[in-house]
Amino acid sequence: MKYFDFNATSPLSSVAEEVWISSNQEYWQNPSGPYIGSARAKNRLEGLREQMASILETKTENIIFNSGATEGNNTLINYCAKNSKSDARILISNIEHPSVIKAAEVTFGRKVDFIPVSAAGVIETPNLLPLIKNGNYSLISVMAANNETGIIQPWREILEMCNENNIPYHCDASQWIGKLPPKNLGKCDFLTGCGHKFGGPKGVGFLKISECFANFKSFYGGEQESGHRGGTENLPAIAAMIAALEGKLLNSEIIKANQELWKNEFLDILLNEVPGVKIIGKGVNQLWNTASIILPKHDNIRWVMRLDKLGFAISTGSACASGREGPSHVLKAMGYTFDEIKRTVRISGGSDTSRKAWHELGEAFKRVWKDLNMRSSSLNKARIISI
Amino acid sequence: MKYFDFNATSPLSSVAEEVWISSNQEYWQNPSGPYIGSARAKNRLEGLREQMASILETKTENIIFNSGATEGNNTLINYCAKNSKSDARILISNIEHPSVIKAAEVTFGRKVDFIPVSAAGVIETPNLLPLIKNGNYSLISVMAANNETGIIQPWREILEMCNENNIPYHCDASQWIGKLPPKNLGKCDFLTGCGHKFGGPKGVGFLKISECFANFKSFYGGEQESGHRGGTENLPAIAAMIAALEGKLLNSEIIKANQELWKNEFLDILLNEVPGVKIIGKGVNQLWNTASIILPKHDNIRWVMRLDKLGFAISTGSACASGREGPSHVLKAMGYTFDEIKRTVRISGGSDTSRKAWHELGEAFKRVWKDLNMRSSSLNKARIISI
Repeated sequence: MKYFDFNATSPLSSVAEEVWISSNQEYWQNPSGPYIGSARAKNRLEGLREQMASILETKTENIIFNSGATEGNNTLINYCAKNSKSDARILISNIEHPSVIKAAEVTFGRKVDFIPVSAAGVIETPNLLPLIKNGNYSLISVMAANNETGIIQPWREILEMCNENNIPYHCDASQWIGKLPPKNLGKCDFLTGCGHKFGGPKGVGFLKISECFANFKSFYGGEQESGHRGGTENLPAIAAMIAALEGKLLNSEIIKANQELWKNEFLDILLNEVPGVKIIGKGVNQLWNTASIILPKHDNIRWVMRLDKLGFAISTGSACASGREGPSHVLKAMGYTFDEIKRTVRISGGSDTSRKAWHELGEAFKRVWKDLNMRSSSLNKARIISI
Repeated sequence: MKYFDFNATSPLSSVAEEVWISSNQEYWQNPSGPYIGSARAKNRLEGLREQMASILETKTENIIFNSGATEGNNTLINYCAKNSKSDARILISNIEHPSVIKAAEVTFGRKVDFIPVSAAGVIETPNLLPLIKNGNYSLISVMAANNETGIIQPWREILEMCNENNIPYHCDASQWIGKLPPKNLGKCDFLTGCGHKFGGPKGVGFLKISECFANFKSFYGGEQESGHRGGTENLPAIAAMIAALEGKLLNSEIIKANQELWKNEFLDILLNEVPGVKIIGKGVNQLWNTASIILPKHDNIRWVMRLDKLGFAISTGSACASGREGPSHVLKAMGYTFDEIKRTVRISGGSDTSRKAWHELGEAFKRVWKDLNMRSSSLNKARIISI
């Protein structure tokens, strides 16, 4: 199986596996206990927090470990809604992950404003400044890179605008972290991410908080995570997540250069062999691993199934959006028609994806295109005969 | 190190480690993806849900996997508060875990009523019926067994009363599951538990829900867990948790009989060798693994540190309660004085704890008692001399 759905999840990296196993042997005791084994676990946990803070270039006390980005997005927005003035609003982009959009809509009700996205899939910052200046926002949430299109958002500019206007800025960096250098991301007031997008275990993530919500609470209970989140700390998974992330930060520039080249070679095959194919995100900054493609004909699910049979795992969109959640809100926001959305597939490679695998994926698309066309032309013939 | 703090956390069992590793190899793909690897993961996940439902004797669709009992307690009470009439109240016992008490106090404000506990540490059910009949409760929450004292609560009776009066009943069974047969626990409308208390991984647990909160949502986002909890499912940890639990259900009667005998032998050493020691929970049903002991002299932390040096890990109370959270609310509710609480230790063994280890723990207490007394009598002498 050649796997091209890294934006949905990634296999556990061998370093993460090793660290998880060894942490369960050496540091399994409850960090809040009163004996030496607990003190060692507590020290290790705080060392991990420092390591994470150093990666994100932020203060150690701002890092809260949790179960993942969906928890982070929900608990942050929930806390923000409960602790804002009754007329306060939230401003989010209309291409956020459902865990931001739905959480905002449920907790802020009608007091959610949406920042529109351009046809190219990028938040248009000139539109944003008057909104920020005149709105009454207790939080602005714009992701670092979109999960469906891989299109990179101007989070640095937005952060600056928010800073200048003294409005807390939240950045869901789930798709950025582990793919691009996290430099400056820690300057965002709030930042969410999770381990399984970059070779860490599932069920672990982090939320970077800021002094502006100093009393932030996600779960009440024990006083773990400096009182911000009750519940026994998942040290083995935290250690494994950070080990996986450290691994991804090595050689990240070479990986980016190679993967971008190979992805473009794959896209060239597609453009040559599948006439009428459209590449979403051409001409704008995009994650090196992601391609979002509108195929000229046939429903995306048929392509995905055919490619699956040939040994390639690609997706129709985000894993959350696939299945019963209807057409992608991201592509809709970019102005694509329902018909186009139904023909869109997402391809997302990993840092280890080989040039050969990208090339073979191109060849597989070529083959499926021929097969589907042959099948539809023979069906048409059959129809003509039966008429 | 001889470990006697299983109520705080347990080491990962070897079967859980194996299953976690193999699940990360075989079923690491996102269960919501559209290709065969995802379908296999989805099937495996639903198989695990069936297995958990069968252990708890409840319907498969009632099982939600999450990050642990603190999340379960918080999200349930939060949902309940938001979706109840504005005058609805919550009734909880005053010996609940802080994740129940604090969540209730924050979300229900002044509309929290407390069920008192007897001096013996048991919820008195005769007091409960008039409360239930006359109250306006949207939820009643009483744990199955207390984490600090190990004292078993009359959850079966409370469940029956709640059923008769048509009030949803929530049981935090974190300390029961994996130690005693879960039979009938699945009949509670809501049930919380977590893996790391019985040899499963940290960061994984479950919430059993009921039709009375059919639209229960913990995290908004993807439509995972039948729409009840967004976020990529932590399949490897879920599989490992259930494997650990299945292991604990084997021979549970023999384990209970042996451990109870050995714990009592340990308590006999204590009663003989440390004059004035008081055993909390004598004469009432208690978890086979737990002993809560008031020592005649010296602060509990001194005992814990001395025992730690001799290679025994015991606790001053719950891991959440140890440290900065002040004296145990559980012992306070039972009527113990501040002075008594400061002299209380908790000992909690595991299913593999040997008779020898229990015996050695008794001998260690004997030694610490002598050492502490010798030290304090020599200190007294020193004081007398210096005067």
